[in-house]
Amino acid sequence: MTALIGIDWGTTSFRAWRMGQGGKVLETISDGPGILAASALPGGFRQALQDSIGPWLDGTPIIASGMITSRNGWVETPYLPLPLDAAALAGSLTLHDGIHFVTGAVSDPDGPAPDVMRGEETEIIGHLAGGGTGGLFVLPGTHSKWARAEGGSLVGFRTVMTGEVFAALRDHTILGRLIQPGPGSEEAFRQGVEAGRQDGALLGRIFSARTLALMDRLAGEQIADYLSGLLIGDEVAQGARDADGPVTIIGRGDLAARYQTAFEVLGVSAQIAPPGMAQRGLWEIARMRGLL
Amino acid sequence: MTALIGIDWGTTSFRAWRMGQGGKVLETISDGPGILAASALPGGFRQALQDSIGPWLDGTPIIASGMITSRNGWVETPYLPLPLDAAALAGSLTLHDGIHFVTGAVSDPDGPAPDVMRGEETEIIGHLAGGGTGGLFVLPGTHSKWARAEGGSLVGFRTVMTGEVFAALRDHTILGRLIQPGPGSEEAFRQGVEAGRQDGALLGRIFSARTLALMDRLAGEQIADYLSGLLIGDEVAQGARDADGPVTIIGRGDLAARYQTAFEVLGVSAQIAPPGMAQRGLWEIARMRGLL
Repeated sequence: MTALIGIDWGTTSFRAWRMGQGGKVLETISDGPGILAASALPGGFRQALQDSIGPWLDGTPIIASGMITSRNGWVETPYLPLPLDAAALAGSLTLHDGIHFVTGAVSDPDGPAPDVMRGEETEIIGHLAGGGTGGLFVLPGTHSKWARAEGGSLVGFRTVMTGEVFAALRDHTILGRLIQPGPGSEEAFRQGVEAGRQDGALLGRIFSARTLALMDRLAGEQIADYLSGLLIGDEVAQGARDADGPVTIIGRGDLAARYQTAFEVLGVSAQIAPPGMAQRGLWEIARMRGLL
Repeated sequence: MTALIGIDWGTTSFRAWRMGQGGKVLETISDGPGILAASALPGGFRQALQDSIGPWLDGTPIIASGMITSRNGWVETPYLPLPLDAAALAGSLTLHDGIHFVTGAVSDPDGPAPDVMRGEETEIIGHLAGGGTGGLFVLPGTHSKWARAEGGSLVGFRTVMTGEVFAALRDHTILGRLIQPGPGSEEAFRQGVEAGRQDGALLGRIFSARTLALMDRLAGEQIADYLSGLLIGDEVAQGARDADGPVTIIGRGDLAARYQTAFEVLGVSAQIAPPGMAQRGLWEIARMRGLL
């Protein structure tokens, strides 16, 4: 019997879980339309839901987190301040069109570098609810999030634009000119991480992706991995300065593995969290709200 | 009477000087075709020369520096190692098609981050030949160069891709989405420099160009200047760590002024060199070679 439907709905991704007693996952849909694609449908978000998980829609409570509550989403909800725990998220759910929306978080709203997230807070809550320890987290992505949790609450975070900057440098600067497609080179990635940890301006270090290639010390098919290593190495070296224990990587697949490699090269302890953090966080928030 | 024709020939720029006795500038052409445009002409570089300074070509010695000696230039010449002085540049001129080409410099060719320049070495030599002091130099541009000179020689340098990265971020990432055209805001530029000096990853700090705008704390027409300040502030804060006296800015116009503002905000002493460093360097190298 279905107890809850959870959705992690991002700009370009849609993952949904049909959960039974105790939050057990009965079924997963992971290829629904992201917000950009869904909002372009004639029937908009409602149609996207029907197309993706129509057979599940039988009155079971639905809870959703992610960029779906941003300005371009289904409903825009205000950010919650830090520290933020599952109870605060549960207490501020927005019921709209029959769906309970989890809102995002804001860090340092009046300071020099305010920051925001929508979706990652739910993954961190899921980690903590499952008995995971606090400490420092990284959620790699187009915009990576580095977050700190203490005593069951999210207490701080910041966004690092590594993925998007990598794509812009690769596709729109001189660094991309010599790149050749290839099978991927872990050696070049590690070399980049080593270079990325060096002192001095990142804006300078990246130029080595060109000069090493010009001097035939880096093959064309290694440049992209080297540059990726440079940027992830910079991100991890700077982010891990705040670590006071093993860093938890919340992410999947190749990208999480790349970050783990970077941590290893830099000599910082890190572990990849088990999968399912978003689903688990949605369950926990729904449970605290009494939706189950 | 013309004693020397000097050309500073870059990828997208061409400046030429007709010089008389003692290096006095008799005439200047500053709008000739850069290498990309020149190489696309039916008659190539020869035609570009004829079109730009044809009336000057009467057998007077011609000396040229810049990217014109790179792989895509008129003739490719090998880089010279550091330390590098006017005599070494004079001793390695390449005579090709009747023109004396000044070659570029390589830094740390076997190290983890080799670096190269073509053209800036001549400007620095010009500064030193004119009685300018050594120390730390910055030559702002698409690819800024930070260089150190001691005892009449160029002894170290590195490239910082600030200008090109700025354009890629503005035009090809989410940071550019909220930008509105405007008259330019020195206030926003200074605010960006302040933010750029903060500790922590640059890849994270740049995200504030979006969040400050989302929170209506930065107007759409201020975002570009703020982002420019963030990047130049990062470059200057990191580059100036090596300063042991006033930094010399070799550059012109708005960009040199921006850098001077950044130095001022960061509390580092800096001065803009008088104009004409390339022309002066070309004269000095030709003089040492006995071309005059």
